[in-house]
Amino acid sequence: MPTDATHDPSLKSWVESANDPQTAFPIQNLPLCSFEQEHDGHSHPHLGVVIGDRVLDVTTLAMSGKLCGGDEQLARVLHAPLWNIVAGQPGLVRQLRAEIQDFLRSDRPASQPIKRLRDKALVPLAEARLRKPLLSFDYTDFYASKHHATTVGSMFRPDNPLLPNYTHVPIGYHGRASSIVPSGTPIRRPSGQTKADDAALPAFGPSKMLDYEMELGVFIASGNTLGEPIRIGDVREHMLGMCIVNDWSARDLQKWEYQPLGPFLAKNFATSVSPFIVTMEALEPFRIPGPARGEGDPEPLGYLQTSEPWGLDVAVEVHLATKQMRDKGMSPMRLSRGSFRDMYWTIAQLITHHASNGCNLQTGDLLGSGTISGPTKDARGCLLELTWEGVGPDGKPKPRAPIQLPTGETRLFLQDGDEVIMNAFCERDGFRRIGFGECRGVIVG
Amino acid sequence: MPTDATHDPSLKSWVESANDPQTAFPIQNLPLCSFEQEHDGHSHPHLGVVIGDRVLDVTTLAMSGKLCGGDEQLARVLHAPLWNIVAGQPGLVRQLRAEIQDFLRSDRPASQPIKRLRDKALVPLAEARLRKPLLSFDYTDFYASKHHATTVGSMFRPDNPLLPNYTHVPIGYHGRASSIVPSGTPIRRPSGQTKADDAALPAFGPSKMLDYEMELGVFIASGNTLGEPIRIGDVREHMLGMCIVNDWSARDLQKWEYQPLGPFLAKNFATSVSPFIVTMEALEPFRIPGPARGEGDPEPLGYLQTSEPWGLDVAVEVHLATKQMRDKGMSPMRLSRGSFRDMYWTIAQLITHHASNGCNLQTGDLLGSGTISGPTKDARGCLLELTWEGVGPDGKPKPRAPIQLPTGETRLFLQDGDEVIMNAFCERDGFRRIGFGECRGVIVG
Repeated sequence: MPTDATHDPSLKSWVESANDPQTAFPIQNLPLCSFEQEHDGHSHPHLGVVIGDRVLDVTTLAMSGKLCGGDEQLARVLHAPLWNIVAGQPGLVRQLRAEIQDFLRSDRPASQPIKRLRDKALVPLAEARLRKPLLSFDYTDFYASKHHATTVGSMFRPDNPLLPNYTHVPIGYHGRASSIVPSGTPIRRPSGQTKADDAALPAFGPSKMLDYEMELGVFIASGNTLGEPIRIGDVREHMLGMCIVNDWSARDLQKWEYQPLGPFLAKNFATSVSPFIVTMEALEPFRIPGPARGEGDPEPLGYLQTSEPWGLDVAVEVHLATKQMRDKGMSPMRLSRGSFRDMYWTIAQLITHHASNGCNLQTGDLLGSGTISGPTKDARGCLLELTWEGVGPDGKPKPRAPIQLPTGETRLFLQDGDEVIMNAFCERDGFRRIGFGECRGVIVG
Repeated sequence: MPTDATHDPSLKSWVESANDPQTAFPIQNLPLCSFEQEHDGHSHPHLGVVIGDRVLDVTTLAMSGKLCGGDEQLARVLHAPLWNIVAGQPGLVRQLRAEIQDFLRSDRPASQPIKRLRDKALVPLAEARLRKPLLSFDYTDFYASKHHATTVGSMFRPDNPLLPNYTHVPIGYHGRASSIVPSGTPIRRPSGQTKADDAALPAFGPSKMLDYEMELGVFIASGNTLGEPIRIGDVREHMLGMCIVNDWSARDLQKWEYQPLGPFLAKNFATSVSPFIVTMEALEPFRIPGPARGEGDPEPLGYLQTSEPWGLDVAVEVHLATKQMRDKGMSPMRLSRGSFRDMYWTIAQLITHHASNGCNLQTGDLLGSGTISGPTKDARGCLLELTWEGVGPDGKPKPRAPIQLPTGETRLFLQDGDEVIMNAFCERDGFRRIGFGECRGVIVG
């Protein structure tokens, strides 16, 4: 992929922690965030970018006249507590990236005023209270992993796991925007209606089959006018950046409620997002050709075809820490590792399809990818899949295989006190590592 | 139902048109709206209530100190272009209703300053450009008519039309908030993927099966905190009022895309709402006991049970005017007339169910009822049902019966130029007629 000077791996920052080869946040990344810091008992949300183990206070930097080419009027958009206004202005994110990178470079001379500004604008990441960086008016969740759709489908239809529309339509549904919460927010176990297979009637009570789903999400930059589709060749200007999404799912609620109109209360009690927006600019070196279609798969319809490389090489990992593990000082255990390169539909296709009927996407909207699962069992992005053993010779599902934890505990689904920790990162020879940070959430009863 | 003095049918207004027995907007109604009026080439959105054939400019009235008990600080919420801030304050809508009704009463003495204020604050409804009265962050659509679910289900499963969860779960799904448009907005015919039964592959193009759905919607007043369900006994404070909703549906897109995650592009290209919020205060006299359960139907689970009368006696009508009919000066033709009293799930149950897993509803959110259909064919609230003739003795669907129009035209689905006009109203002996106004939309190609 074409990359610009902002990806030069030799660039270093005067923020030393950003030069550690293992950091998720080198000067080539600079993900966007919104944060609060206690100051004299008060705190106000500011915009920031992450650099090493620090947050650069972008709002403070803007007040100093260092951003937006010194245009004070334009720089006022950086005084807001959310990135929405910036995100809606094409080109501004790219300009800010260049300006902020310039400010952070180690090879720039630093006068006394600049040194004071550096001190003033740098906040320890550990002391920053991270907020949602964007207001999402609408949230859509897709189902873009064929591996996920096939495995889940095989639980209901062993002989015919994939529905006929799957290879033609990037299947998606509307989620709940109000219950998107930032990483670290405790997740209350939802109650709801469930019906056991052998019960005559449903009952209402706490979910017994609480699960996570490892996804990535793309945030919308500029939107489209109602009635005006987005052509796939124009899709780049509508992408702001990406984050990790945990689409918490109550499988027992889902099974009973989902026909005929899809998931509802099984999903809308909470969706966790990582607090950083990794910009499309930072992800540029990790774009790869879209996935090859499987044998027998049809070509996508014309509106979904593009020769541009809209695959993304992003590794995704899920870890689990139970209360007992934490109490014993044990590290979280990795449950899976997958890659976004295994997705069947690309983010370009998801956005194009979403707007193909004229539906208007708005700045800040979040589009989740759906569970990211790969071809191997250790790449499955939810417990529903990880514990699935397939169908036996008698045509019936084999018993599920619980996850074995180092404490001797086992898990088919999440228990109260369990913390799910997701991370994601990009690696490529000749480029710095670009991390997404973490998306965490602990289940409370 | 208990009613207060604001429903007294003998109350008259000095706005003469409000005293016409046939008006939708007597002094007992006072629905909320947001409007713009050209003034010296400028226009700013103001809040209003409808009275007869006039809009009372509530923002102007607030500036005069006549509202909120003269509390200027509180009255600032009436300077906003949307009702959201007012709606989130329990009791304020009821207080404003009483104050505005008092201002509009014919039996109040009118000094010269009051007469001037009356002149200044009254705008002809025909000259007001009506906007969406509320910003809805989230929009949910339900499926609360058992008649609708049964008829539609019979098209796919003649022997077993109603799914087993229907009588237990108020089925709903998330819709698209961004594409909610006010009455009068032209509706662009959506394109999308469809697949003919006899085709090997899908194709992309304009929908050939465009339909409307006649619904009512309820707007949320105060919301609930994430993780905290709403008990059915507490549901009233979360209800602001109601409007007409046209859930435009592309049936051919829907058929191909909806499995397994529900309707998406078939619905999210546009949802029209009437421009007035008929408050729950105005609807109070038209509350009736909830629907009797059918023979063999289970009692709802405990969290959905209430002895309060949450049925609503609202008549709903759909009219159609084709371009040819309009060109010939013909009146729109009525396609159906139904009643909200025939719904299986009440709005109290919809709200309670929605929040039962802790999902946070927010002020301004819109909950659509789903298509309102009744037991008779002329009470069916969409073309998909109106043209359905059932299944023949051979077990196959009979041919659909097109709607016959006075021009000699016929319709199975909507054609470009067709205008759909919905209205709704409440009537009860001893009370004034309470109307919802109209929800209109014309199809453009």
